[in-house]
Amino acid sequence: MSRERLMYLPLGGAGEVGMNCYVYGYGAPDKERLIVVDLGVAFPDMDTTPGVDLIIPDIQWLEDRKDRIDGIFITHAHEDHVGAVGHTFSRLGAPIYARAFTANIARRKLDEYGVEPKAVTTMSAWPEQVTCGPFTVGFAPVSHSIPESSALVIDTPEGRVVHSGDFKIDTDPLVGEPWDPVMWGDIAKSGVRALICDSTNVFNQTAGRSESTLGDNITSLVASADQMVIATTFASNIARVKTLAEAGVRAGRSICLMGRAMRRMVEAGLETGVLSDFPSTVSPEDALSIPRGNLMLLVTGSQGERRAASAQLANGKYRGMTLKEGDLFLFSSKTIPGNERGVIRIINQLSEMGVDVVDDNSGKYHVSGHANRPDLETFHDVLKPQILIPMHGEHRHLREHAKLGTAKGMAAIVAVNGTMVDLSGNAPTVDGFVETGRTYLDGSVQVGQFDGVVRDRIRMALNGHVMVNVILDEDEPLGEPWIETMGLPEMGNSNAPLAELLENDLNQQLMRLSAKTLMDDGKLEEEMRRMTRNIAMSEIGKKPEVTVVISRLQ
Amino acid sequence: MSRERLMYLPLGGAGEVGMNCYVYGYGAPDKERLIVVDLGVAFPDMDTTPGVDLIIPDIQWLEDRKDRIDGIFITHAHEDHVGAVGHTFSRLGAPIYARAFTANIARRKLDEYGVEPKAVTTMSAWPEQVTCGPFTVGFAPVSHSIPESSALVIDTPEGRVVHSGDFKIDTDPLVGEPWDPVMWGDIAKSGVRALICDSTNVFNQTAGRSESTLGDNITSLVASADQMVIATTFASNIARVKTLAEAGVRAGRSICLMGRAMRRMVEAGLETGVLSDFPSTVSPEDALSIPRGNLMLLVTGSQGERRAASAQLANGKYRGMTLKEGDLFLFSSKTIPGNERGVIRIINQLSEMGVDVVDDNSGKYHVSGHANRPDLETFHDVLKPQILIPMHGEHRHLREHAKLGTAKGMAAIVAVNGTMVDLSGNAPTVDGFVETGRTYLDGSVQVGQFDGVVRDRIRMALNGHVMVNVILDEDEPLGEPWIETMGLPEMGNSNAPLAELLENDLNQQLMRLSAKTLMDDGKLEEEMRRMTRNIAMSEIGKKPEVTVVISRLQ
Repeated sequence: MSRERLMYLPLGGAGEVGMNCYVYGYGAPDKERLIVVDLGVAFPDMDTTPGVDLIIPDIQWLEDRKDRIDGIFITHAHEDHVGAVGHTFSRLGAPIYARAFTANIARRKLDEYGVEPKAVTTMSAWPEQVTCGPFTVGFAPVSHSIPESSALVIDTPEGRVVHSGDFKIDTDPLVGEPWDPVMWGDIAKSGVRALICDSTNVFNQTAGRSESTLGDNITSLVASADQMVIATTFASNIARVKTLAEAGVRAGRSICLMGRAMRRMVEAGLETGVLSDFPSTVSPEDALSIPRGNLMLLVTGSQGERRAASAQLANGKYRGMTLKEGDLFLFSSKTIPGNERGVIRIINQLSEMGVDVVDDNSGKYHVSGHANRPDLETFHDVLKPQILIPMHGEHRHLREHAKLGTAKGMAAIVAVNGTMVDLSGNAPTVDGFVETGRTYLDGSVQVGQFDGVVRDRIRMALNGHVMVNVILDEDEPLGEPWIETMGLPEMGNSNAPLAELLENDLNQQLMRLSAKTLMDDGKLEEEMRRMTRNIAMSEIGKKPEVTVVISRLQ
Repeated sequence: MSRERLMYLPLGGAGEVGMNCYVYGYGAPDKERLIVVDLGVAFPDMDTTPGVDLIIPDIQWLEDRKDRIDGIFITHAHEDHVGAVGHTFSRLGAPIYARAFTANIARRKLDEYGVEPKAVTTMSAWPEQVTCGPFTVGFAPVSHSIPESSALVIDTPEGRVVHSGDFKIDTDPLVGEPWDPVMWGDIAKSGVRALICDSTNVFNQTAGRSESTLGDNITSLVASADQMVIATTFASNIARVKTLAEAGVRAGRSICLMGRAMRRMVEAGLETGVLSDFPSTVSPEDALSIPRGNLMLLVTGSQGERRAASAQLANGKYRGMTLKEGDLFLFSSKTIPGNERGVIRIINQLSEMGVDVVDDNSGKYHVSGHANRPDLETFHDVLKPQILIPMHGEHRHLREHAKLGTAKGMAAIVAVNGTMVDLSGNAPTVDGFVETGRTYLDGSVQVGQFDGVVRDRIRMALNGHVMVNVILDEDEPLGEPWIETMGLPEMGNSNAPLAELLENDLNQQLMRLSAKTLMDDGKLEEEMRRMTRNIAMSEIGKKPEVTVVISRLQ
């Protein structure tokens, strides 16, 4: 057991889309030196995480091995890859490496926690490399839907590992480096032990389309509009934001960026030089005095987010701007599964105002940032890795990608979050499982996934809540129990107020309890809960959550 | 104002997909005799209606005019058209008319409320008609995704009105009547005043495909499988269930129906004669002893419903049956927007078991039951109505359909739920708005949309709940306040239990309150709530819901 090994351990992103966090290690088992790739977040939803602000990977395993972490590498600046750097920095305390644009975004996040900018080392693109413990790591440019996305080329004592990051193959991405088969051929030349590869679009059978295919379509659409044009996309998709802005300018329109993220991302693009020729824009205040037919707004909120500019415009007004009949609203984006309701809500609100909505159904106004199946195969074929480990995707994506790899002769396995994989041999082997999961940022507190906080919120939402207050004096009830309800109908089937019904019935049942039960807080509480749930069941047909407070006068 | 008018009033389904309920009236304003078309339900979701069991239209307007209702017509047996007949029967008390299959389903629903089968009159297909007050109504067969779907031909003193119901144009629907241009030409011959028309698929630009295009694809798929095949679709889509079953039989497999709805729908189909040659099936018990390669399960739960057979199979077991690596699971269905998360959860669970999942992405294994845009145009062209009122659809669908109608020279308007439309003139006019909305079936109680019950549930889910108990003796606090929390983190930022922190802080602040505040329940409660929220904000970064109970000893 003391031979050295090369290990791979996903802590987030393998078995889900989002919250990416991967660990590589080299050394004797349980003594490996470690590097971390990406520290991303996932977003909460009402079904499973009501009230939660943000979801980050459970990094307890890493924190317990803090002294063995030599570096943290961020592949690109999407929230699901960089979003948790601020929230986790103090617990990991390792140097962070990223390319300029990503570093810019990471530093803004660290700044919110008072962490100095120097915590992040800015890296240039491949062939620059940095040595971190037993690893030598370089950032090889790939195309994606945000500037300076990179695959990581990780040289280890067991050979070269390529971690693809999120990528697509685009020979003309407009912003950033095009697909470079020569560079990749070079990287692959000396052999690739393992490719750890993006899987999100493995079910898409057609080759991906280039960002450059959109400009003409968007330009004709904007040119065809009489009134104001509003377009939304992910703010971080700077190439798209630029394509939209340029289309507006060609149609003789002034461009106005609306929404904090939209302005911040363009700002970061200009600061870091990835955007050098972005059209000039007008402020939201100045936009108000420009004729609507000469104006184009680029707004946040393509996923229906309730507080974003698009939702506020659909609700009536954002920074003084209102939409009117005849305006054109373009979703230059894809709705992420789970966000449909929010997006559809906005589309219907726009429809009520008489605003014409164009979405990406036709594929004319949006392309994906991820490699489709044929593009994955191109990447496999260039790299010719011995081992393929699918990452970033739900189980179905990982499984399909592994099948594809196996069919093509690579040694492939499905490794979900928590799977400790040994990459040292000819084929990957599973060396056990690490306890992992999700941590919830809730207000200013970090809450564990299994702390019961979210479970109780869901229960209250589904069942309502009854509060029972009993005061006892010398182990005798003092007056009737006092009932408050929340989230329950006011009237029961007996046509009397539910709280009153509960008070009367509980009082009667309370009188019948034995002295022994009345003296025992635990028993009394259990009895009151049971009775309350039964009475509610017969009155309103459901069993609510019950909190019992027993006060004893001395 | 005393001239007679022909009115149309949607109470559900116009401005949403689901919960269909439409009213037609004829007579002097506010004295019209009324008929109701469809009484459907909508389904709750965690985002907007946590804990609710079912959503029905608010029929208060109808109930207040109960004595003027001459009949209730159900176009077809989908839940969003027939689901509320049981829940509303006693409040409306009018005779129900439906064709045999729909009547069979309606009677099952009424039976749950102890209503006699004779409440429903079984109608034959057009040209049979029934006279109800000033209306004469016939059921004209249309194709849809359930047997015996019908449009209603409603003859009124102001001419003929056609209410399309949900429909598609299918010349070979396998179960039920094919599209009959001769019958429709005949119906249209004497002129159609108004077409009230299904709008759900208006954005789909390609002509709809026939149910009959699926059989060969499904047969090849099933034939290609080695192990067990499981297929899910809406149970009510009996044509599809039959197509699936026949494909299984052709591949030499025994067919087993799993899930209550699946068995009930096939039963209703056989009872009413719409299904005469359904393959014989085996019981779930007998299925256990059949070799997996010779077995095909047809299961409920195509929308990811948590309690349906497919979810239970994905979770491990249903009626003794388990899935295994190499099984094939077919979703012969489309995921309704909003249900994506549930369906994807199941697909990933199946993936974890090694089950291969095929869904309708390719369009090879599912066709829609609604008319796409070209089919809507075909229907318009055959009927040549003077007036077009789009119904059944979100606002965006209604608006798009109205635009289409206007472009083709029909007098079209968007009339959402609650819009009182006068159809008497050459063009429709809006005669005001009726208060309408949704009623929640919650346990055994009907709750109004704005009763605050659901609002409070959502607030507890988002913010958590703090219960504060204070006992006062002679207007002096007796001991510290007692705090219980639910759905909140146990520890605050001060690294002490939140409940303790609240008790200490509240106690200190309570001591400082004036005698006047302590004597006034309202003021004291408000003060305690405010203090609790502020303390929580600084301790956990969020303001919870607070319930204060003040007990005063006499």
